[in-house]
Amino acid sequence: MKNRLREDLIKAGTMGRPSAKRMETYGDLTPSEGVTRPTGSRADKEARDFVVKLMEDAGLDVKVDAVGNIFGTRAGKKQTGTIMTGSHIDSVINGGMFDGALGVFAAIEAVRRIDEEGFENERPIEVVVFSSEEGTSFGFATLGSSVLTGKVSAEDALKMKNDSGRTLGEALEEIGYRGRYARSLDTVEYHVELHIEQGPVLHSKRIPIGIVERIAGVQRIGAVIEGRQDHSGTTPMDMRKDALVAASEIVLSVNRNTLDVARRSSSSLVGAVTKLDVFPNGINTVPGRVEMSVDIRDGIEESMRKLRDETLAALTRVRKTYGVRTEYRMIDVKPPVALSDGVEQVIERSCKNAGLRYIRMNSGAAHDAQNMASRVKTGMVFIPSVDGRSHTPLEWSEWENIETGTGVLTETIKALAAE
Amino acid sequence: MKNRLREDLIKAGTMGRPSAKRMETYGDLTPSEGVTRPTGSRADKEARDFVVKLMEDAGLDVKVDAVGNIFGTRAGKKQTGTIMTGSHIDSVINGGMFDGALGVFAAIEAVRRIDEEGFENERPIEVVVFSSEEGTSFGFATLGSSVLTGKVSAEDALKMKNDSGRTLGEALEEIGYRGRYARSLDTVEYHVELHIEQGPVLHSKRIPIGIVERIAGVQRIGAVIEGRQDHSGTTPMDMRKDALVAASEIVLSVNRNTLDVARRSSSSLVGAVTKLDVFPNGINTVPGRVEMSVDIRDGIEESMRKLRDETLAALTRVRKTYGVRTEYRMIDVKPPVALSDGVEQVIERSCKNAGLRYIRMNSGAAHDAQNMASRVKTGMVFIPSVDGRSHTPLEWSEWENIETGTGVLTETIKALAAE
Repeated sequence: MKNRLREDLIKAGTMGRPSAKRMETYGDLTPSEGVTRPTGSRADKEARDFVVKLMEDAGLDVKVDAVGNIFGTRAGKKQTGTIMTGSHIDSVINGGMFDGALGVFAAIEAVRRIDEEGFENERPIEVVVFSSEEGTSFGFATLGSSVLTGKVSAEDALKMKNDSGRTLGEALEEIGYRGRYARSLDTVEYHVELHIEQGPVLHSKRIPIGIVERIAGVQRIGAVIEGRQDHSGTTPMDMRKDALVAASEIVLSVNRNTLDVARRSSSSLVGAVTKLDVFPNGINTVPGRVEMSVDIRDGIEESMRKLRDETLAALTRVRKTYGVRTEYRMIDVKPPVALSDGVEQVIERSCKNAGLRYIRMNSGAAHDAQNMASRVKTGMVFIPSVDGRSHTPLEWSEWENIETGTGVLTETIKALAAE
Repeated sequence: MKNRLREDLIKAGTMGRPSAKRMETYGDLTPSEGVTRPTGSRADKEARDFVVKLMEDAGLDVKVDAVGNIFGTRAGKKQTGTIMTGSHIDSVINGGMFDGALGVFAAIEAVRRIDEEGFENERPIEVVVFSSEEGTSFGFATLGSSVLTGKVSAEDALKMKNDSGRTLGEALEEIGYRGRYARSLDTVEYHVELHIEQGPVLHSKRIPIGIVERIAGVQRIGAVIEGRQDHSGTTPMDMRKDALVAASEIVLSVNRNTLDVARRSSSSLVGAVTKLDVFPNGINTVPGRVEMSVDIRDGIEESMRKLRDETLAALTRVRKTYGVRTEYRMIDVKPPVALSDGVEQVIERSCKNAGLRYIRMNSGAAHDAQNMASRVKTGMVFIPSVDGRSHTPLEWSEWENIETGTGVLTETIKALAAE
């Protein structure tokens, strides 16, 4: 049973990884090359097809909604009070093989184990694959769960565009995952999500299970600096309006202010310019325009607001210093979210019954669970990430911890489904 | 005659410009959208085909060498002592329509005028189109003239790769401009190039002609900063190795040091990070790697060397401050070059005979002429660039000045060819 999940995860890990052939031999599992599986890509289609096949093999009734969320239902004696469980299978560029995928494949494995045990669930159990969680292609993170929970309309989501100008609607159409199912959450009572921690806490403390209490909020700023594109050989220094010089001031300001605010008020605050594009980016041209994305996160809303305000003040300062124009918009603002006490207690009981060490903790990363928490009782289970690495090819979790997490997930679902 | 050159330039200006249709109406000549015509592109092929046709129509014997340099010869009474004249037709990304193209089309126009006047040239006149001057695709500026003058072997040039991994050889093969002609410079005595100034001097002084005495040298550094790619939500600030933060220190250091060195010793020194790429460049990932290009130019070698050394020292500093790894290589090192006194005097006489105001000046931009100067007597004629703008869609030169420059070029060629 353990090997079955392992094989599913390894197989999924080859999808979107350039040297997939090497991975398939199972001989080289220390990943030196990352998974690139943005929503709408060929690798995304491949992984979706694989998930749907496993769901059907596990006897689930599979449906797809308008934005590509996939639902696989195991009926219960009751029609309502459904327990959802799952995560996402899209990835960042050059990321790891467990971020998201673990929660999906472990949920399918949980259903298979429940089925094989002859466990009769009172409530329906529904494996969910949320579409476009990373925001890699369409610039909006946890998009599928945002639509499912009514925070974003399907219509608006389908119009969002990726870097090559294709809409989510067109991308899903092309890979055959623009469905017609309209999933209402009125008949759903719980959501439970297993995920790798993506941070260093569990690994450094050598604890196999984290029970998530709060998910950090995010304030994401999209900023544009417009300078003047000129010949870099002939334009005297005092005639330049170099957008990259101004942008570099912003990068350093965000870094410095994050450390400052973190020291003064909230040690968990993180902030960085994560994405930066220079135009026209030619070796002999003064940079005329820079587009950048500032990522700010914390469990404490006030700290994020402070850092955001200081970043916007820095944008105003470079206007004066460098004669550039600047604009910004808040791409994403999500407050910190508390998960369900009740579900936390059920997860805790599963850990105790199995004699497992665990801690309660916060999540620094965003998850679909934070959207789900606004509509249904939601819980999250974390397992350790080696060295806390994630969103890198070096992301890794030990197979032993994956088994432990899958066991806790399975027992939690059973406990909730027996109600 | 004036209109013929104007029409050639406008037609060439549509090649590589997305809204070419609009340009063809001649109704919208204030370019709001630039020309993108890197070597090996479809637009490059289109412009080359156009040039070859005009050359053949002008009675020139056209040949193409291994790296795509095009030569069109008008025979003289003598077999040797050839006068070359021309420039390039490749462009930067989103650049102007005269940079390079002027020198090519004005050279063809000069030959047409010489022919129509029934002028009998003693020496051969040869219009040259240098391949890959901008270095936009293959990262090496003035490549065609470097090969022609023996600074780079054709073999090495053909192996150079563009961003999509295609070699120059493959790119030229595909557009049909990998020729077999081997042009020796042993029978060439002169090179004369007409070009837009690309800087603000002539325009601000309202002088129609610049006679170039020296061409600034360049020191171009390619630097890589390797940090650690991590999840931007879960990785505590003190565990990060953010490559973009370190790179931003370099951008600001180059800017500050250029101003410093320029103030202390050489007011014409310019320096900037012109190209910068972030990897993986995802909105929720700490930047793991930055690749950047530093462009340093001056007529004084010592100033360039000082700025280069301070830039390399800054790279060493960020290694310690941010725990990143750095590497660099000198992509391009060209000393300042003095052009031929003799040719300058011939150009000067052409100006005086026509009653034109002119100044002697230096070129901040690199040109194929600086390679040619190492092998043959070389001169350059500049005409004003409006507001000194270049390598931008806003690059412009007045038609009146284009006609004046073409006249000076024609008379200079005639004077040299009569010898």
